[in-house]
Amino acid sequence: MSVGDRFPKIDGVAKADGSGIYADDISFPRMLHAKLLRSPHAHARIRGIDVSEALKLPGVIAALTGDELPLKYGVIPWTQDEQALATEKVRFVGDEVACIAALDERTAEDALKLIRVEYEVLPAVLSPEEALAHPEIKVNEKAKVGNITKHVNLQFGDVDRAVAGAAAIAHETYAYAGSTHAPIEPHCAVARVDADGNLTIWSSTQIPHYLHRELSRVLGLSPAKVRVIQPLLGGAFGGKSDPFSLEFCVAKLALKTGRPVKILFTREEVFYAHRGRHPMKMDVTVALESDGRIAAVDNKILIDGGAYASFGMITAYYAGQLLTGPYRFGTYRFDSYRMYTNKPPCGPKRGHGSVQPRFAFEVALDEAAEKLGLDPIEVRRRNFIGEEVDTVNGQRITSNGFLKCLDLVEQASGWRERRGKLGPGRGLGVAGSMYISGTAYPVYPNEMPQSGVLVKLDRSGRVAIFSGASDIGQGINTLLCQIAAQELGCDPRHVTVVAADTDLTPVDLGAYSSRVTFMVGLAAQEACEKLAAKLQAAGGATFAEACQKAEAIEGAPLAASGGYRTQKLGGGYRGGTIGASPAYSFTAHVAEVSVDEETGIWKVERIWAAHDCGKALNPTLVEGQIEGSVYMGAAEAQMEEMVYNEKGLLFGPSLLDYRIPTSMDTPDLQAMIVESNDPNGPYGAKEAGEGPLHAAIPAIANALYDACGIRIRELPFYPQRVLKLLRERGRKEEERVA
Amino acid sequence: MSVGDRFPKIDGVAKADGSGIYADDISFPRMLHAKLLRSPHAHARIRGIDVSEALKLPGVIAALTGDELPLKYGVIPWTQDEQALATEKVRFVGDEVACIAALDERTAEDALKLIRVEYEVLPAVLSPEEALAHPEIKVNEKAKVGNITKHVNLQFGDVDRAVAGAAAIAHETYAYAGSTHAPIEPHCAVARVDADGNLTIWSSTQIPHYLHRELSRVLGLSPAKVRVIQPLLGGAFGGKSDPFSLEFCVAKLALKTGRPVKILFTREEVFYAHRGRHPMKMDVTVALESDGRIAAVDNKILIDGGAYASFGMITAYYAGQLLTGPYRFGTYRFDSYRMYTNKPPCGPKRGHGSVQPRFAFEVALDEAAEKLGLDPIEVRRRNFIGEEVDTVNGQRITSNGFLKCLDLVEQASGWRERRGKLGPGRGLGVAGSMYISGTAYPVYPNEMPQSGVLVKLDRSGRVAIFSGASDIGQGINTLLCQIAAQELGCDPRHVTVVAADTDLTPVDLGAYSSRVTFMVGLAAQEACEKLAAKLQAAGGATFAEACQKAEAIEGAPLAASGGYRTQKLGGGYRGGTIGASPAYSFTAHVAEVSVDEETGIWKVERIWAAHDCGKALNPTLVEGQIEGSVYMGAAEAQMEEMVYNEKGLLFGPSLLDYRIPTSMDTPDLQAMIVESNDPNGPYGAKEAGEGPLHAAIPAIANALYDACGIRIRELPFYPQRVLKLLRERGRKEEERVA
Repeated sequence: MSVGDRFPKIDGVAKADGSGIYADDISFPRMLHAKLLRSPHAHARIRGIDVSEALKLPGVIAALTGDELPLKYGVIPWTQDEQALATEKVRFVGDEVACIAALDERTAEDALKLIRVEYEVLPAVLSPEEALAHPEIKVNEKAKVGNITKHVNLQFGDVDRAVAGAAAIAHETYAYAGSTHAPIEPHCAVARVDADGNLTIWSSTQIPHYLHRELSRVLGLSPAKVRVIQPLLGGAFGGKSDPFSLEFCVAKLALKTGRPVKILFTREEVFYAHRGRHPMKMDVTVALESDGRIAAVDNKILIDGGAYASFGMITAYYAGQLLTGPYRFGTYRFDSYRMYTNKPPCGPKRGHGSVQPRFAFEVALDEAAEKLGLDPIEVRRRNFIGEEVDTVNGQRITSNGFLKCLDLVEQASGWRERRGKLGPGRGLGVAGSMYISGTAYPVYPNEMPQSGVLVKLDRSGRVAIFSGASDIGQGINTLLCQIAAQELGCDPRHVTVVAADTDLTPVDLGAYSSRVTFMVGLAAQEACEKLAAKLQAAGGATFAEACQKAEAIEGAPLAASGGYRTQKLGGGYRGGTIGASPAYSFTAHVAEVSVDEETGIWKVERIWAAHDCGKALNPTLVEGQIEGSVYMGAAEAQMEEMVYNEKGLLFGPSLLDYRIPTSMDTPDLQAMIVESNDPNGPYGAKEAGEGPLHAAIPAIANALYDACGIRIRELPFYPQRVLKLLRERGRKEEERVA
Repeated sequence: MSVGDRFPKIDGVAKADGSGIYADDISFPRMLHAKLLRSPHAHARIRGIDVSEALKLPGVIAALTGDELPLKYGVIPWTQDEQALATEKVRFVGDEVACIAALDERTAEDALKLIRVEYEVLPAVLSPEEALAHPEIKVNEKAKVGNITKHVNLQFGDVDRAVAGAAAIAHETYAYAGSTHAPIEPHCAVARVDADGNLTIWSSTQIPHYLHRELSRVLGLSPAKVRVIQPLLGGAFGGKSDPFSLEFCVAKLALKTGRPVKILFTREEVFYAHRGRHPMKMDVTVALESDGRIAAVDNKILIDGGAYASFGMITAYYAGQLLTGPYRFGTYRFDSYRMYTNKPPCGPKRGHGSVQPRFAFEVALDEAAEKLGLDPIEVRRRNFIGEEVDTVNGQRITSNGFLKCLDLVEQASGWRERRGKLGPGRGLGVAGSMYISGTAYPVYPNEMPQSGVLVKLDRSGRVAIFSGASDIGQGINTLLCQIAAQELGCDPRHVTVVAADTDLTPVDLGAYSSRVTFMVGLAAQEACEKLAAKLQAAGGATFAEACQKAEAIEGAPLAASGGYRTQKLGGGYRGGTIGASPAYSFTAHVAEVSVDEETGIWKVERIWAAHDCGKALNPTLVEGQIEGSVYMGAAEAQMEEMVYNEKGLLFGPSLLDYRIPTSMDTPDLQAMIVESNDPNGPYGAKEAGEGPLHAAIPAIANALYDACGIRIRELPFYPQRVLKLLRERGRKEEERVA
C-alpha cells in the first residue's frame, strides 16, 4: 500500500544537495553561448537589421535574424502569432530582434551592441481600453478585428430580468493587476545537433511535446529528427508553457554552426518572457434572492493580453467558464475580450484565467450577502451546487467536497466565535472556488491518448517508468513511484522514472491546466494493472521473484503501457465546453488579517485553506501544493504587480524591484485536505496545484472588510490603497455623523 | 526493406568525431580517482596490510582492502574464485591487493607506495605441467583436486581401435601461445552513489547483467539498488567479459566516501587483467580411412589457466566440443585439463576455447591427407558433415554453408592453378572451422529469456528500442535499427537505441559466445512483429501516420517486447551439451604466405576468408567482423604472445613490447560472405564475429608447409622458429641426399 501515504519527493535530495541537473548544468565541448537583442520600443517597424559589425567581433561565431526562422508558432493552433525573432515589427519593449552566438556570454552581449537595427517607431497601445479605442493601431496582425485576440460572449437565462427582480445586488468594478511567475530558475535551453543531423534540445519547458511539434515545424525538420528533453525544472507555474524564442534560436544556431549552443535568460529577460497573470478589468454583478440563493451573475471582463496570444484564447474562456461553481445558478452571462497591447505577452499563470474573476465574484457575493444580513459562510453553503450535477454552462461536476471545506475552515478559524468580533483592525474573511483537473480535450484535435506511460519490470525487482509528463515540482514522478508500488507491490524507492524526453518517453501533452496527476495517474494505473495481473498469475515470495516467474512465463521482458484517453463528457454545449474538465476540485479559505488603520499597513496573519483534491495520493505533496498556491495568492493580494511606464517600459524587471514575499512576508498557512474520492480520477484524485490559489485573494479582501469595513476592489492591496479606502470610510462616517 | 542492406554503424560518427562518450569521458563534481596496489610476487601469503601511512598523504581520501569485500565472485556460478582485493594470498604478479582513492590519479599512485604489505613468498607454479606435478603448491583453493580448474574427458566410439585400423595417421604435439585482447580502450569504471543509496556503475564491460548480479551480491546491496551502464566500448574481444576488481573497488569506495570514484586502468594493468587466450599444449591424432574420410580424432589438451577460473570451465569444454564439425566423424575422444597457474588469469578471447585445437586439428588433417596424396581442399570436402545433422557429441547442425565456403576460397585464391606451384618460399594453405551462435543454455540456470528487447513507437515516427545487449563493436545497435526498419517500415535512422543500462533496458546476458545478433535479433524481431501487426491494422500513408492511427486505436503508447527463449535443443547428451548452440557458422580460409628461406622472415600476403553467417543482416558489418577476426588470427599466428620470466613477471606489459600488427603488418584480406539462411536465426542469420578467426592460423601454417615444406606446430610462428624448422628441413634433406 503506497498510494495515499506520505512519501518524500524522489528528486528532493538531488535538488537539495546540488547534484540535480538543470538545463544550465548541461554543457558540451565547443558549446557556444548566445544572447538575444531586444527591442527598446513598445511598437516599431523594423526597416533593417545589420549584423555585419557584430560578426566582426572576435569570439563571435554566428548571428541570427528572424528571416531565417520566418514561421509563426504557438501552442494553440488557432492563434499562432509568435516568431522567434521579429522580422516586420517589434511589439513590446523586450521583443526579440536578433541573436548572437559567441564563445562566451560576455562576448555575445558585447556583440549585441554592434547590431544596427533601423526602427520606425509606431504609436503604441498600452492598455486594453486604448487597444479597444484604437483599432487603427494594430498591435498584432493575427487579430481579425482591431486588437481583439478573442471575444467570448455567452448567456444562460435572462440575466437582466433576474437582476432586476433580485432581493440584493452587488455590482462593482474590479481591477486585477498583472503579475508574473518569478520562478527561481530562469529559462534556459541548450541545443546540440549530431553528425546525422538529429537535433536535441534540453529546455526548461513544461510542454516538451508541444515544443517538439513547434520546433519541428518552424525548423522544417522531421519531428523524428527532433528530440526535446526537459531536465529538472526550477519552478514554472505556467511561465514555461509556451515555446520561447530561445529554444528556436539555440536550435537554429546549432544547425547553422554545427556546435552546441546555450541560451540562459537573465532575470530581466525572464520578465520580458513573462506569460504571467493577465490584468483584468471586471464588471461583476451578483444578484441574490431573499433566501440568499444566487439569482444571476453577470460577468463582463476586459483582459490585457500583451503583444502575443500565448494561451489568451483559453484565458478568455476560462475567465467565464470556471466561475459556474461551486455555487448553483442558472442565469449567467459572461462577456470577455482578450486584447492585444504593446506589452510583454500574458499567459497562463497558476490558476489560469479564473483567479481574477473569482476574486471579483467572491467579494461581490460577500457584499450582496451582507445586504441580506447573511453570514458569508452561510450564503456559500446555501448555494452549494452539489455532486453529480451540471453547471449552467454544461460542466459535469462529479465529486464535490466544498461543504466539507467550508466546515473545516469555519471550525479551524473559529469563525463563529471570532468573525466580526476581533476588534478594530482585525478580521476574518472567507471565499470559495472551483478548478479543473485538466481540460477535456487536447489542444490540437486528435484521437490519440493525452497521456501515456510505459512501465518495464526487471528481474532484479527494479521498475522503470517512462513518462512523458513534466515534473515541474508538483511531484508527478514521485506519484508514479507510488502508483507502481500500489499496483505492483514493489518498493516505491526501487522505481526509476525517465520523464519528459520525447525520444524515450510516451507523449504527455504537458504540465498545464492541472491535468498531470489526473491523466498521467490514470495512464500509469492502467499500465501497472496490466503488469500486476501477470505478477499475480506467476506468484512468488517477493516482488523480484514474482517478476522472475512472470518473465519466465512471458518469455519476454515484462512491459506494459497505459494511456489517458479523452473522455467524451456528457453535458456541455457545442459538443463540449472549452475548459470542461473530467473532474473539479473545490477550495474554501478563511483568511485573518490585521490592519494598522493609521498607516494602511496590513498583513495576513493566517490562512486556513481546505482543499478537496478528491484523494490525496501523497498528503505531503498535496499540502505542499496547497501551501504554494495559497502563498502565491497571498503574494498577488499583497504586493505583486507588473508596472510599466508611459512608453511601455517595464519598471524594475528584477527580483529587487518586482517584489515577491520572502518567508518573512508569508502568513501562517494551514493546509487541510478534504477527500471526496472522485469517480473519474486516479484512486479518486483531482487537482491540487492551482485551485487553492484562487480563494486566498478574495478571502483576504473580505477579511479586510471584516477588519475595518473597507471593500478593496483593486489588486494588489497596497497599504496606500488600503489607507485611501480607510480615509474614504472615515469621511463617510463623518458625513453620516454630520 | 532494410535487413540485408549495407547501412553504416549508428555510432560510427560519434566514435569518429570524438563526441562519443566512453567510460573515461564520464566525470562528476567531487569525483575521486583510485589506484590499485598490485602484488610483486607470483605467489605469496599476505601477513598484513598497513594503509595508515598512505592515508596520511594529503589528497588521499580513502583506502580499501580486501576484508571490506570478502565475497568471491565470477560469472560462472560453479567457479567463483575471485576477490576484488586479495586477503589471504596473492596469486600472480599484478594481483590486486589494496586500493587508494584520492583527489587525483597522481596522488593515489604516490599513496600506493606508502602501503606496507607483509608477504610470505610461496613457491609458484608457472606452467600447467608444473601445476600438475605439484598439487601441493595450491594456486587457488577453489580447485578440488590439485590445481585443476576443470577436467573434461569424453569419448565417443572406440578411438584406439579406429586409430589402429586407419589408412593414415597424423599424431603430433602442438603448442599454442597465450595472447591477450589488447583493446584500444583500457578498462575503466566510474561509480556514483546517490543520496538514497542507489549505486550506479558506468563500466567498460561486455556483461552488464552479470556485473549487476555480482556487484549486488558482493556489496550486499539489493540488485534493485544497483545500476550498471555500459557506455561506448573501445574494443573488448572477450577481455571485458568478467567482473573486475576495479568495478568492485570504485563501487565500494563510492559507498564509503559518498563521492563518485573512477578507476582507469593503465595499459600495464590491462595486461594484468588479461583473460586472454589460454596457452594450450595439444596432443592431436587425426586418423583417416583410405578414401580420406576421418576415422577418428583424439584430442588431448593441457590448458594453462592462470590464477583464476574466469570462463576456464567453459574453455575446457569448448576445446573439445567445438571440434566436431564441419567434418563428420563418429569416433572421438577428448580429454582436457584446465590448470591453475601463478600467472594472470586467462579467459575468453574471440573464438574462445576452440581456436587452439582448431589450429592443431587442421594442421594434422593436412598432414594425414598428404600421406594419402589427397588435396587439402578435397579432403575437407569429403568429410563435410552436411546440414540437419547431429555431430558426434550431439550438437545439432541446421544450416551449413561450408562447401560453398570451400568453393569460394578455392576459386578466389586460384587454388587449383597455384597451390604447390608458386615456387620456393611461396605457398597456399587452407583450413576450415565451425563456431557457435551463442550457447544454448544461460550461464546461471533459469527459465527467463536470455535476451529481451522493448520497442516503443512515437507519433512523430520515431522508434525507441531498449536493448540490454552490449554493442562491443559488432554493431548490434545498428542491426536493431535495421530490424525495426524491416518489420515496421520506419526509417532506420529514426531509431533511438538505449542499450546496456540495467535500469532502463531489459536483460541480455552479455556479449560473449557470439550470441548477441542471434538472440537479440530474434527478440527484436518478435517485438517489432507485434507492433507491425498493429500498424498494419491501423493503416496510414506514412509510418508516422500509421503510428498515430494505431496509437489512437490502442488508446495507449505503442510498445511491445520480445524475448529470446532458451530453445530445448534436440540431440545432446546429459540433457544438453555444454557449448551446444542453436546454430553453427562455418568458415574456410586460404592463406598465401611468402618466406625468405635464408632468414625465416615471412609474411602473410593475403587471406581469402569465406564465412557462412547464415544471412548477412548488414554485409558491411559482416565483412568488418570477418576482417577483424582474420586480422586477429593472423596476428596470433605472426607475433602475439604473453611472455613471463622465471618469477612470473610479465615481459613488457605495454603496446611497445607486446606486439600487435599495425596496418603495415596486416595482410590483404578478402572477406567473402556465404549465406545459408539458418532456420533458427533471425532472418536466417548466424554468427560472424568469432568463427572467421579460427581458420586463419592453420591456413597460414599449412601455407608455410606449401611454401617451404615445414610443419610449424608452435605459435607464434616467429621467424626464428621458421628458420629453425627450415634448418631442420635442410638437415633432413641433406641426410636423405647423403
